[in-house]
Amino acid sequence: MEDQWARLGLDLHLTLGPAHGLRAGLEYALREAVRGGRLTPGTPLPSSRTLARDLNVSRGTVTQAYEQLVAEGYLASRPRSGIEVADHPAAPPPASIDLDPPVTLPFVKGADLRSGLPDLSAFPRREWLAATRHVMQTTPGTAFGYGDPAGAVPLREALAEYLGRVRGVVATPDRVFVCAGYTHALRLVCQALSLRGAASIAFEDPAEPAYCSLAGQMGLEVSRVPVDRDGMMVGRLTGEDVVTVTPAHQYPLGVTLSPARRTRLLAWAARTGAYVVEDDYDGEFRYDRQPVGALQGLAPDRVIYAGTASKTVAPGLRIAWIVVPPDLVRPLRESMRWDEAYVNVIEQLVFARLIRSGELDRHLRRCRIRYRRRRDRLGEAIARHVPSGRLSGIAAGLHAVLEFPGAAIDERRLLGHLRRNGVAVDGIAYFYHRPADAPLGIVIGYATPPEHAYSSTLETLISTLETMPGALSRDSRS
Amino acid sequence: MEDQWARLGLDLHLTLGPAHGLRAGLEYALREAVRGGRLTPGTPLPSSRTLARDLNVSRGTVTQAYEQLVAEGYLASRPRSGIEVADHPAAPPPASIDLDPPVTLPFVKGADLRSGLPDLSAFPRREWLAATRHVMQTTPGTAFGYGDPAGAVPLREALAEYLGRVRGVVATPDRVFVCAGYTHALRLVCQALSLRGAASIAFEDPAEPAYCSLAGQMGLEVSRVPVDRDGMMVGRLTGEDVVTVTPAHQYPLGVTLSPARRTRLLAWAARTGAYVVEDDYDGEFRYDRQPVGALQGLAPDRVIYAGTASKTVAPGLRIAWIVVPPDLVRPLRESMRWDEAYVNVIEQLVFARLIRSGELDRHLRRCRIRYRRRRDRLGEAIARHVPSGRLSGIAAGLHAVLEFPGAAIDERRLLGHLRRNGVAVDGIAYFYHRPADAPLGIVIGYATPPEHAYSSTLETLISTLETMPGALSRDSRS
Repeated sequence: MEDQWARLGLDLHLTLGPAHGLRAGLEYALREAVRGGRLTPGTPLPSSRTLARDLNVSRGTVTQAYEQLVAEGYLASRPRSGIEVADHPAAPPPASIDLDPPVTLPFVKGADLRSGLPDLSAFPRREWLAATRHVMQTTPGTAFGYGDPAGAVPLREALAEYLGRVRGVVATPDRVFVCAGYTHALRLVCQALSLRGAASIAFEDPAEPAYCSLAGQMGLEVSRVPVDRDGMMVGRLTGEDVVTVTPAHQYPLGVTLSPARRTRLLAWAARTGAYVVEDDYDGEFRYDRQPVGALQGLAPDRVIYAGTASKTVAPGLRIAWIVVPPDLVRPLRESMRWDEAYVNVIEQLVFARLIRSGELDRHLRRCRIRYRRRRDRLGEAIARHVPSGRLSGIAAGLHAVLEFPGAAIDERRLLGHLRRNGVAVDGIAYFYHRPADAPLGIVIGYATPPEHAYSSTLETLISTLETMPGALSRDSRS
Repeated sequence: MEDQWARLGLDLHLTLGPAHGLRAGLEYALREAVRGGRLTPGTPLPSSRTLARDLNVSRGTVTQAYEQLVAEGYLASRPRSGIEVADHPAAPPPASIDLDPPVTLPFVKGADLRSGLPDLSAFPRREWLAATRHVMQTTPGTAFGYGDPAGAVPLREALAEYLGRVRGVVATPDRVFVCAGYTHALRLVCQALSLRGAASIAFEDPAEPAYCSLAGQMGLEVSRVPVDRDGMMVGRLTGEDVVTVTPAHQYPLGVTLSPARRTRLLAWAARTGAYVVEDDYDGEFRYDRQPVGALQGLAPDRVIYAGTASKTVAPGLRIAWIVVPPDLVRPLRESMRWDEAYVNVIEQLVFARLIRSGELDRHLRRCRIRYRRRRDRLGEAIARHVPSGRLSGIAAGLHAVLEFPGAAIDERRLLGHLRRNGVAVDGIAYFYHRPADAPLGIVIGYATPPEHAYSSTLETLISTLETMPGALSRDSRS
């Protein structure tokens, strides 16, 4: 075919095989010739009769191809002057920009100990597949339609039961909203509360800066409340309309909000009418004792509880949930109305099945054993080899903070040394409103490496810290 | 156990079985007693020694339970006065609000012919499960982490190839963004273009009102451009910064944007620097001829192409995509940064597999045959039994418009009659900026019923129209 069309002087490079048919091939060739500028606007095309004879195809094939390209706007049919190339803005050839690197957490080779990730090599593939089979076999087709933006009812029911059992959350399915991650949840909450007049929001300091930025971008005035060994210093709260807090395991410092502070925070919220957003991002993981139950259980009318599957299973699922006080059900629904649903209904039903079948519990038990052992090994290695370091925070979650009290170097040098040796960790200053307020320390995401790589990762970390030039401890001489 | 604890006068109703352990049972009972107000703030609790003896459990069990509840804030430990119920806002018992009905498209019994849905009974369950198995077997664990908000690279690559082949879209993977539905896509586009100074957006009239509202809510000035038999009257465009259009199959009228208008629209966009959002919601479905290729292929530097899996597979997937001009890649990425990723990565990889394995094409071929037959039968039935009706729009997509030119009744009466007879359809006035501008007509979503129910659904529709009291045609006498 190429030979035939080349006779037209169109220099047509066909990439379609004959399987696509003569007509489709002709259309493709003409379209590409117009797009590429080889056929310029106004160029008359041969009559269908002539072209059909030249190409040795039926006249109908050419006519249909011309009609198609006229309908698409590549060619134009002029009265009395036949078919010509349409007058339209020339299309540049597609630029081949490199795919941008992902903006969040690319996986790096070496010792990846950045925080925020579970061990993804533990993803329950077999269980996920089995649950998918169950869903495919039992779900009516109607469930695959436009779902309730608040989430599929079976998942909301399963979550209400699960959260009550595991985290002491007071939840009924109507108060549970399924979101595509904590960021989505926070956006919806900020939106709903803004519509009800909220103007300011407090975050802990330190905290994940992206959340503070998001709230600011949503038009809320953002303040920061310092954290000490008892968690957020709630006595510093003043007239904020909303406060977000990580009571079970402060992020990133790893402390627990003390009983007295819990009570004081809720009393403050009750007095001022503020809402508390409880970010229970890793509440399922506590290794030394039973996890402290959710704050929400004490004041379900003032606390918006937020949880996620990102730490228990995988962030790639994009499943999180919030449980809201009764008076926020309608505002949240209103916020979600503009959003449609966000979370794939199949996945919601699969996750509900994982909860109902007990597979999520079994997965969590396996993970708890694994992470506890990792944390213990980290603690032992630090104690033995890096005596100037102090592992702070409770035995919980997926990360620990390693501080170097009174060390004579700065974080930039420490992180640079680690990075040069292939160790990826977060510096703690990143999480502080004013980095200068941060103690010298790093956040170690010990859950991140795959199980088989944990030993070598830990060794790399420890030997890198041991060889840190300069003074990691007050007393050391370099 | 109940008996023992009842002796304390706590009226504890235990719902946890003994499998949960004595300590968990005691904690649960005490927590519920505090929550329910049966134990009021300040009430002193028995010493651990006394309670342990009373309950016939070890003292350690009671101590640990007390400690847990102190940590959670239900109880407080006062120096010298032992444990008492903490002072905190009383938690109301969970209200049991009914689950709200979904805000979009609940499935109704009877003849459901509302538009916007494919036949969900055709959902490719076996193929979905097989693709999930493939993904579970072949995907590295790292893929389950925080993904690229723009979408998983394998899906963006598959979509770029698929859209080029099926819709004539000029796409490279770096320009493809995966979204959680068209609403999400439109929100991101409005956000990105607003940040670049766009202040106004034009929609077709008629169009889906929710999209106009969303754009308005995002701060853009919304104008409407009328549609005639040649699609949007693009000559009415003035200085809008963005225009959204459904060129392949106008929604809801079902006409195609004529070749002359396509050319004129793109010339206008090139001249004014405006962007065109091409909503190609059902471009895969054309029954009388080959689908008209995407407008985007003519001007990939001015057109933002949007497609979706909602009509080809199921809206419950929450997968859609946009292909943007090169200069919008960075602004879109910027918009998405605040959003994290939204679409489950497993689902993205499953969908990519459906495209690559040819299963999506096979599914589409089956659906095309099915819908074409339904549309033909609808046309025949209307011609035979409802001669005053005129089926308008091209033979494409999942819906048709049935107009009653010059009929003497109003839409409200027509829809009321249909609804009373169990027929759910959309009136056409709903889609008009000023409902009074609408012709009398209904939008019939012939793809919506499951295959086995189509005959009876069609019969119900036709017999209901036949028995419409009043005048559906200009000439009929009631």
